Amino acid sequence: MSAVKLEAWREQIRKELDDTVDFWLKYSHDTTHGGFFTCIGRDGKVYDELKYVWLQGRQVWMYCRLYRTMERFHKPEILEAAKAGGAFLRKFARVSDGVSGGGPWKCAFCLTRDGKAVKIQRSVFSECFYIMAVDELSRATGDEDMQLEAEQMMQQVIFWVREDPSGLGRPALPGDAPPPSGMAVPMMLLCLVQQLTEGRGQEVAQKYRELADWCVQQILRHAQRDGTAILENVSLEGAELPGCQGRLQNPGHALEAGWFLLQVSGERQDEELRRVAVDKFVELPFRGGWDEEHGGLFYFLDVDGHCPTQLEWSMKLWWPHCEALVAFLMAYSHTGRPELLQRFSQFPDAEGGEWFGYLTQEGKVALDFKGGPFKGFFHVPRCLYMCERMLDDLLANAD
Amino acid sequence: MSAVKLEAWREQIRKELDDTVDFWLKYSHDTTHGGFFTCIGRDGKVYDELKYVWLQGRQVWMYCRLYRTMERFHKPEILEAAKAGGAFLRKFARVSDGVSGGGPWKCAFCLTRDGKAVKIQRSVFSECFYIMAVDELSRATGDEDMQLEAEQMMQQVIFWVREDPSGLGRPALPGDAPPPSGMAVPMMLLCLVQQLTEGRGQEVAQKYRELADWCVQQILRHAQRDGTAILENVSLEGAELPGCQGRLQNPGHALEAGWFLLQVSGERQDEELRRVAVDKFVELPFRGGWDEEHGGLFYFLDVDGHCPTQLEWSMKLWWPHCEALVAFLMAYSHTGRPELLQRFSQFPDAEGGEWFGYLTQEGKVALDFKGGPFKGFFHVPRCLYMCERMLDDLLANAD
Repeated sequence: MSAVKLEAWREQIRKELDDTVDFWLKYSHDTTHGGFFTCIGRDGKVYDELKYVWLQGRQVWMYCRLYRTMERFHKPEILEAAKAGGAFLRKFARVSDGVSGGGPWKCAFCLTRDGKAVKIQRSVFSECFYIMAVDELSRATGDEDMQLEAEQMMQQVIFWVREDPSGLGRPALPGDAPPPSGMAVPMMLLCLVQQLTEGRGQEVAQKYRELADWCVQQILRHAQRDGTAILENVSLEGAELPGCQGRLQNPGHALEAGWFLLQVSGERQDEELRRVAVDKFVELPFRGGWDEEHGGLFYFLDVDGHCPTQLEWSMKLWWPHCEALVAFLMAYSHTGRPELLQRFSQFPDAEGGEWFGYLTQEGKVALDFKGGPFKGFFHVPRCLYMCERMLDDLLANAD
Repeated sequence: MSAVKLEAWREQIRKELDDTVDFWLKYSHDTTHGGFFTCIGRDGKVYDELKYVWLQGRQVWMYCRLYRTMERFHKPEILEAAKAGGAFLRKFARVSDGVSGGGPWKCAFCLTRDGKAVKIQRSVFSECFYIMAVDELSRATGDEDMQLEAEQMMQQVIFWVREDPSGLGRPALPGDAPPPSGMAVPMMLLCLVQQLTEGRGQEVAQKYRELADWCVQQILRHAQRDGTAILENVSLEGAELPGCQGRLQNPGHALEAGWFLLQVSGERQDEELRRVAVDKFVELPFRGGWDEEHGGLFYFLDVDGHCPTQLEWSMKLWWPHCEALVAFLMAYSHTGRPELLQRFSQFPDAEGGEWFGYLTQEGKVALDFKGGPFKGFFHVPRCLYMCERMLDDLLANAD
């Protein structure tokens, strides 16, 4: 592939990233109560004022990352937006002891515009995005209290995941034993390990090394059936589970796991992990998850070809395509195999510059808003940011 | 409309009801562990063995109702199937004290094939379908212990709904005050009042009269904006709520509320309630919910025309169409207005005898199974059963 072609993609991606940042800077800031609106229509109008904690945290993180690592985004308005979002998050996301039974670190899932808790999930994801946000904000501002806060919440999350989940409020049920193991939790923790250790030296890396190993092992267990399929849920022992839950596939999620593993393989110069990441977590889910008839990645599939029970199984969502872009470009960067770059090059066309979140199987816009309860300032800019950086490196090496 | 036409519809519906009963008798019974499979593919094969308590209860209820009230279903095999399902439900659905904190009456939402609890919802619906099942089974078998059990659980449900929901396990959150009032709970309770009082005389009817009045009033509060729209969620005071939640419409659910209210209006000879039921809860949601382009009722809509955030909002589900059939035929039976019968007559054609559960907006089969976690032996046979009975009456009166 010629440098001219790489250069053209970088230009396109850079432009889309600029447009995306502009959109959220312009429409999502709540200057009255702080924090970010995320339910934003195609016209930029806010159609719901609820504040989703995952998305508050992700937006803080993304602003800080852009501010900290890309010169053209190193602007006061972006840092100020991140700080304002961080202040809202730190003031309101953590719910008091009595309410949740989860101790001082349990976070709400959803808040009113002025910060009152509306819903608490019995999982660790709100807390994880809180950690991502606060740690990245500590890096952008140099505030060590925030770094400490992120560390402390991380310890709580690790305790819930690996020792005792009872503080999350989910009853232990006899039919749920052993509880199933989804791919999301180890992926999330691996992401946090990278967040908390990046550039902080050997001692911090060592502190989290065992956890990182555990996460990698947990993720690898989802390659099932002699490595012919990635399954979203497996037993705690790493065996296939019965029924729909056991047969469920989420190709976009597997691709995201693929580039998480690729990053680890790069840090560790682990060739075997690199090979597994590319073969099993990038190429395999792409082949299985691609809709040959209409194009695009299915949201869910059943490994035995049954119809998934999720009503939205055949829809084409934005984020699996974001993960595919990152995964294929990263796989190419690591291996130099041209067919991986070829796959990458199919996506920007497939998306056609559209960043609606939800298409039907046939590619019609099914939900026409730009932001919603689960679509915020995260997957699109993270993807564009990472692709731009990777193209920078590829072009620099090509020179 | 001629009696010949009514007769032809009755024949078609009778045939479909027979086919539906045959399908579930043939494929859904678990003769090893008891209870019913409901995840059943188009070929009749079970693709998941989990047992959903709502659907267990509904199937018991439906078998008993058919056995008790329709001569051609008054067969030992149907009663035996209902009794076996009831035994499974009574043995396994209620989860022990410590597990849920909901006391001796809290039911699981989902069980393993052999009856171990997998999931508990923090709502009252599992308990409500348990009550429906056990009460109807007591009527089919003459077992007074079961009637008493249904009564006792009903008292618990009423306590959770009207006095103190804390036993359901949902934390009271500051942003949730006042908690929103959905249409489902008063509809469900109204349905149970009819179940528990039918044919049991004035004393029992009197016992539940105040509750029935409360349910009717709660449902009527969902007619908002000067009676121009039915909204799925309102505040406890009956005012419109902000945001997506407040603007949400579920046309099939409103139509179901319509025929619930029509039934009450008939029992009470309440002309005003009848008028409101037909105008506001049958004709209005049909007009607003019908897809002029592709036909069929949308699953969700936003009253201001925003895009709903539910991914499946534009899909065409089987059950809203079942409710529409019942609602229009009942509205015609009550009023004799020919345009209501005209609406009814459009549906069997629109469905074309298909009883898949989930179509895309355009009418393509999106999920090709016959039963799933939320589609069991209930909406289709209830609809056909009720329509057949109403057509019987219309034809008898026409003679």
